[in-house]
Amino acid sequence: MVFKMKTVSIIGMGFMGGSLGALLLQKKICENVVGIGRNMKKLKIALKKKAATSVTTDLKKGIENADIIIISLPVNLIPLAFLKIKPYLAKDTIVTDMGSVKGLIVEKINRIDTGKNFVGSHPMVGSEKSGIKNIIPEIFNGGTCIITPHKNTDKKKMLIVEKFWKLIGMQIVKMDAKLHDKYISRISHFPHIMAFIITNMASKIIKKNKSIIGRGFKDITRIAASDEDIWTDIIISNKNEILKDIDIAIEELDALSQMIYLNKEKELKNYILNARKLRERI
Amino acid sequence: MVFKMKTVSIIGMGFMGGSLGALLLQKKICENVVGIGRNMKKLKIALKKKAATSVTTDLKKGIENADIIIISLPVNLIPLAFLKIKPYLAKDTIVTDMGSVKGLIVEKINRIDTGKNFVGSHPMVGSEKSGIKNIIPEIFNGGTCIITPHKNTDKKKMLIVEKFWKLIGMQIVKMDAKLHDKYISRISHFPHIMAFIITNMASKIIKKNKSIIGRGFKDITRIAASDEDIWTDIIISNKNEILKDIDIAIEELDALSQMIYLNKEKELKNYILNARKLRERI
Repeated sequence: MVFKMKTVSIIGMGFMGGSLGALLLQKKICENVVGIGRNMKKLKIALKKKAATSVTTDLKKGIENADIIIISLPVNLIPLAFLKIKPYLAKDTIVTDMGSVKGLIVEKINRIDTGKNFVGSHPMVGSEKSGIKNIIPEIFNGGTCIITPHKNTDKKKMLIVEKFWKLIGMQIVKMDAKLHDKYISRISHFPHIMAFIITNMASKIIKKNKSIIGRGFKDITRIAASDEDIWTDIIISNKNEILKDIDIAIEELDALSQMIYLNKEKELKNYILNARKLRERI
Repeated sequence: MVFKMKTVSIIGMGFMGGSLGALLLQKKICENVVGIGRNMKKLKIALKKKAATSVTTDLKKGIENADIIIISLPVNLIPLAFLKIKPYLAKDTIVTDMGSVKGLIVEKINRIDTGKNFVGSHPMVGSEKSGIKNIIPEIFNGGTCIITPHKNTDKKKMLIVEKFWKLIGMQIVKMDAKLHDKYISRISHFPHIMAFIITNMASKIIKKNKSIIGRGFKDITRIAASDEDIWTDIIISNKNEILKDIDIAIEELDALSQMIYLNKEKELKNYILNARKLRERI
């Protein structure tokens, strides 16, 4: 399969959309990157940062020559964006996204995706930084992109989407959208909740005794500096899986509390040993 | 105050003791570092790694010329080690430790420290690595050392201990031992518990789908690779504070669970915003 791509349109030029646009141009994967957004001031930063070759606030115009359209919006806005562009999609136009919750998106979009234009993607990269000002094109290098096929997914288009992320420098894992949401809660969404809690619990120390804070605390709370709008959206969008994980965590804390209270050193040691051995596999 | 120090004896040549010995020699802070331990094979590694100028398994001999003795043992063994060396301490000999729990240690030792030899220290550095093989002398550079004065502490000796850690490259914070334990649970011991839980909960993914694991998970679980013996000891030694923190964490998880379940996006956003602002202060 020869991979020819002239124009990529990106709907939403924030941290992820901007980083992707800049990388596509740096790597010369396409000729044109059209940055689409609502705020011309931010779009102009995208131009200045070489994250797009042209920008527009007009959704219809922005996608009219696109070979592939990337929806890079908060999770809850992705299906709506698809609905808006649907009337203008040609048969061959590919639409994908970068949302970190997939169950609802893939289900909703496939219900209206009569032209089979959509393939769900989740490039598993990100940063506690956000916004077009902070883009890091290299963030995609060596990362993993999860593609979530649906029974309605067009196989040819999926192959092209795979190829697209590979060209960018990512490895591909395919996974059912529901399993994706379960796994991503476990390794990303739920750990963010834990990081928010650890940070908020240390409020007084951070404000008054910050010099005693070491590398361990800094590492474990790095992701607590994540954007509150993006993460409120993600958490609400994947609430079922996250609520399950929170329940399990409460059970684990309760079990550990018992072990510690009763000085069950052997059990405690095994719990830590298990964690260490697992962590050493990564 | 002129700082003259010929011999430092370190009881326990593991990761921390070994790293300290090597740094003392690299920086020429003293002439001799005597490494004291029970396992001659490990002590020989200490010699080879230039973490000591001489080694011995004989506690009495090991400390006889020491200007300062550093007890670098698991927290629960520190008071016992002090008891063992007590008969051989000269009036001017200074004894300090590197234990990360202080309440019990400082209380127990001060009860028997008739010669006022002891000053409690906690250099707030460490690694998920352990053992003499993995020493990292640079780990002390720029770190903070908490000194925990007791009403019986000899002020002159405390000044020398302060000077000692400063020469090594650390900044000093003084704090009551009880407050120390509360704060250190909050920013180190309790976060370790959270890291163990997050890692153990992801067991299946680590074993079968590790390619989807990204930087966020790696950072938040780095400390879960910590040694199980050392950490069982620390957790049991600081159980009162850690149990309180676990209870608070369960309440927080419960509150977040309610927010998420009821779609209280504004509250959730504020919770995350609060964490982000705190994290950005560090």
